[in-house]
Amino acid sequence: MAERAPRRRARGGGGAARRAERSAINFETAKYIERNIPNFEVLDDAALEVIETNAETVLAEIGVNFVDNPAALQRWRDAGAEVDGERVRIPRGLARELCKTAPSSFTQHARNPEKSVVIGGKNLVLAPVYGPPFVRDAKGGRRYATLDDFQKFVKLGYMSKWLHHSGGTVCEPTDVPVNKRHLDMMLAHMTLSDKPFMGSVTEPSRAQDSVEMCEILFGKEFVRDNTVMTSLININSPMTFDDVMMGALEVYAKHNQACIVSPFIVGGAMAPVSVAGTLTQVLAEVLAGVAYSQLIRPGAPVIFGAFVSSIDMNSGAPTFGTPEASLVTYGAGQLARRLNLPFRSAGSFCGSKLPDAQAAYETANSLNMGLMAGVNFMLHSCGWLEGGLVADFEKFVMDADQLGALHGLAKGVSVDENAQALDAIREVGPGGHYLGCAHTQQNFKTAFWKSEVLDYKPFETWEEEGARDTYALASGRVDTLLNNYQAPPLDAEIKAALETYVAEKKASMPDAFS
Amino acid sequence: MAERAPRRRARGGGGAARRAERSAINFETAKYIERNIPNFEVLDDAALEVIETNAETVLAEIGVNFVDNPAALQRWRDAGAEVDGERVRIPRGLARELCKTAPSSFTQHARNPEKSVVIGGKNLVLAPVYGPPFVRDAKGGRRYATLDDFQKFVKLGYMSKWLHHSGGTVCEPTDVPVNKRHLDMMLAHMTLSDKPFMGSVTEPSRAQDSVEMCEILFGKEFVRDNTVMTSLININSPMTFDDVMMGALEVYAKHNQACIVSPFIVGGAMAPVSVAGTLTQVLAEVLAGVAYSQLIRPGAPVIFGAFVSSIDMNSGAPTFGTPEASLVTYGAGQLARRLNLPFRSAGSFCGSKLPDAQAAYETANSLNMGLMAGVNFMLHSCGWLEGGLVADFEKFVMDADQLGALHGLAKGVSVDENAQALDAIREVGPGGHYLGCAHTQQNFKTAFWKSEVLDYKPFETWEEEGARDTYALASGRVDTLLNNYQAPPLDAEIKAALETYVAEKKASMPDAFS
Repeated sequence: MAERAPRRRARGGGGAARRAERSAINFETAKYIERNIPNFEVLDDAALEVIETNAETVLAEIGVNFVDNPAALQRWRDAGAEVDGERVRIPRGLARELCKTAPSSFTQHARNPEKSVVIGGKNLVLAPVYGPPFVRDAKGGRRYATLDDFQKFVKLGYMSKWLHHSGGTVCEPTDVPVNKRHLDMMLAHMTLSDKPFMGSVTEPSRAQDSVEMCEILFGKEFVRDNTVMTSLININSPMTFDDVMMGALEVYAKHNQACIVSPFIVGGAMAPVSVAGTLTQVLAEVLAGVAYSQLIRPGAPVIFGAFVSSIDMNSGAPTFGTPEASLVTYGAGQLARRLNLPFRSAGSFCGSKLPDAQAAYETANSLNMGLMAGVNFMLHSCGWLEGGLVADFEKFVMDADQLGALHGLAKGVSVDENAQALDAIREVGPGGHYLGCAHTQQNFKTAFWKSEVLDYKPFETWEEEGARDTYALASGRVDTLLNNYQAPPLDAEIKAALETYVAEKKASMPDAFS
Repeated sequence: MAERAPRRRARGGGGAARRAERSAINFETAKYIERNIPNFEVLDDAALEVIETNAETVLAEIGVNFVDNPAALQRWRDAGAEVDGERVRIPRGLARELCKTAPSSFTQHARNPEKSVVIGGKNLVLAPVYGPPFVRDAKGGRRYATLDDFQKFVKLGYMSKWLHHSGGTVCEPTDVPVNKRHLDMMLAHMTLSDKPFMGSVTEPSRAQDSVEMCEILFGKEFVRDNTVMTSLININSPMTFDDVMMGALEVYAKHNQACIVSPFIVGGAMAPVSVAGTLTQVLAEVLAGVAYSQLIRPGAPVIFGAFVSSIDMNSGAPTFGTPEASLVTYGAGQLARRLNLPFRSAGSFCGSKLPDAQAAYETANSLNMGLMAGVNFMLHSCGWLEGGLVADFEKFVMDADQLGALHGLAKGVSVDENAQALDAIREVGPGGHYLGCAHTQQNFKTAFWKSEVLDYKPFETWEEEGARDTYALASGRVDTLLNNYQAPPLDAEIKAALETYVAEKKASMPDAFS
């Protein structure tokens, strides 16, 4: 367990956090989900053992590539792997043994301690979409994302009750030079929200910048002793670990900051077309990646990731919310739990070009699956559109609303005396109704999850109010939220120090746009 | 087990069925789902026992009402219940004991034997929406349903690959007198489709007409010996069994035809606001209803039903796809299995007024839940809109397409040698891709479920083709299907006999519109 009690900061974010707690302007955020329902498991022990044995075969006989990274090759050699060029063959059992020092659960601290999250166990932490170069909304259509869009998404995330995490690259601010945009993104997460966030991974130096900005926000000592970022390290599937992502992982692991080690799977393209074959490759890749993180720093927090989609064999397009992706995810969850690692998968995935019925079917398929699969950290849990090319404003609030349903489902079933409701059944009797009975009066406020976006009105009322579809309702909600946004309090000195850091870093290098 | 091998008919539907098999015009229908995945269970044994004990308390101490049905009261008296007015109090254990003669699984025969379904066990049989007085489509908007609409839905159901069952009142043909519409509905199911169907329940005499029409279609002897209808008997929750529904059940049970005994629950109105309380009432009601069916004829096939929605406490509107409804359904599935009864629940439920994102979120939540909950018969699996007031043409084909995803998920995970795909991983190696490898070539055709409605194209292509949303795509599909419909072959004599029966019945009574 990497779990540690939050400590008072010697200096840094503590003051801001305390003021945020006292503040009257405080948008409610639900606690991360603590499941009171079982995980859904599709593989029996025999099937799990076949896949685990095969993954070891892949590592020992085929191996993985660590590209442009001589130091990594040396670390593997020192650990007992066979290194041939960039190919690393890992003897049976070695990777799994190395993974044992990774914590099964860890706390990621937010600057508002009430919003710190525990990632692992039966928990589910929800974070928004990550990575799209485009944005879309009803008013402006589809367009390249800008920093202004980015900041709006951070604000929406801050105001979303069911979102526990501010995420990372909620969209790519394409109007800012590539080598500088991480600074603006980090600043936005740190100042516009008080939820936990992710660090930059596009260059090891940018990971280092992320750590340094956290040291300003939280205090150096606090960052040394605690995990304050969870960052996304994608594996170039099949079985390729590039120097950029591994360089970022090295920085984060050294600083005891968390990484998601995540195969990026489009089934049929980056992995076999079969579920079992895909799971074998996913496990081999995660074993190698997590083991490597533990070579950097034993005990560094890390998450078993699996980004899974399938492919449309006609067009080559990735497809989402499909049954095969669900089966892979259910299986990957089982494999992660057998490794005692937190699990990342699922999200508001869809291939649709609009936040329409297709988007919602595919997204609901994936969100429900994520809850049932035992996912501990769900990136992309709202706002994803068009295979991840687009961060959609309306879909962000639509999906974020649906995340409330996951909270309700995860509660499971109480059978305490109040929940048994025998007195209510007695009171009402055959032919009566429960609308006014004592039990209903006492419990109705918390009995049912209620959407803040969807329409429950009768047809006639709905028609009088303009016959709005979900898209129109969501568009109104985006406006309402952004118009009512107020930044969480932050110590002025810290804010100024962050801004100075960003300004000086930006001034220290020429713009780069690739 | 009510399972019997399909027998050759002495006369009747056999010839038509054999011709349908040989026919070149044969729309493919998937076999009903045989799950290779576990059921999702939210209650532990202790919780189940609490609910089962409480349900017996409800039956013994509170009791249920059998309204306007002296014969039923006498049957209960004879069986050992305490009858007080219309109230029937059933001693602890009696109802459960009576339920034991009901089969755990039964075959419902279709006139095309290839489309007969086995309801129970790990199977899931999918049937369309039932009951809406309105229809909607993109062209005509929302309007009262007519017989023409009804016939179109039966045609669409016949052509839907993933739909195993033609259903019953797919919409109310409001242009036909109330006392005659069941004849036209039965005729449509019998002649426009060759899938299994449901009988009328709105009057005992109409149930009798349904049996007689089946005797024409299948032959008298066949109907005597086999189950050819599964009909929907709703309980007036809480705990009220009206004479109309019970009268229909009596007719069907006497003829060994199947009934779904189904509490109609809007949580907070017809049942307590708590999940455990609702489950207690559902179980008590089903125990009483199923036990009654076995008093009529021990061994009559019957299904444990649970129509579950929750309520919006602001407007009083029923809400769908909600987490509380899911928890009730998961729990009800467990209770049904402990009674060794087939289970009916879930559907394409939504409260939305349009087939938009709200409709799709809510529907996907419910469809996925239905698969995971171990549902054996899913009525309303496509086409439901606006809380069941509307049968929607576009949503029918959108939902019916999504049912394909359930088939894919239910397959579970194979770990045979081909599925392990170790040779493919070896062949491709680090940094390669699987698009052209031998394993992909051999398996891609069956590897992934593929939607027939949703759009997987790149943005640019999609935009060039008119930037159609799911609604527009589905509208096109409705037209294509209906334009290509061809009726399954049916013996001309049988068809004429059915038409004569309907004409004579209609002529024998005045029109009634209520």
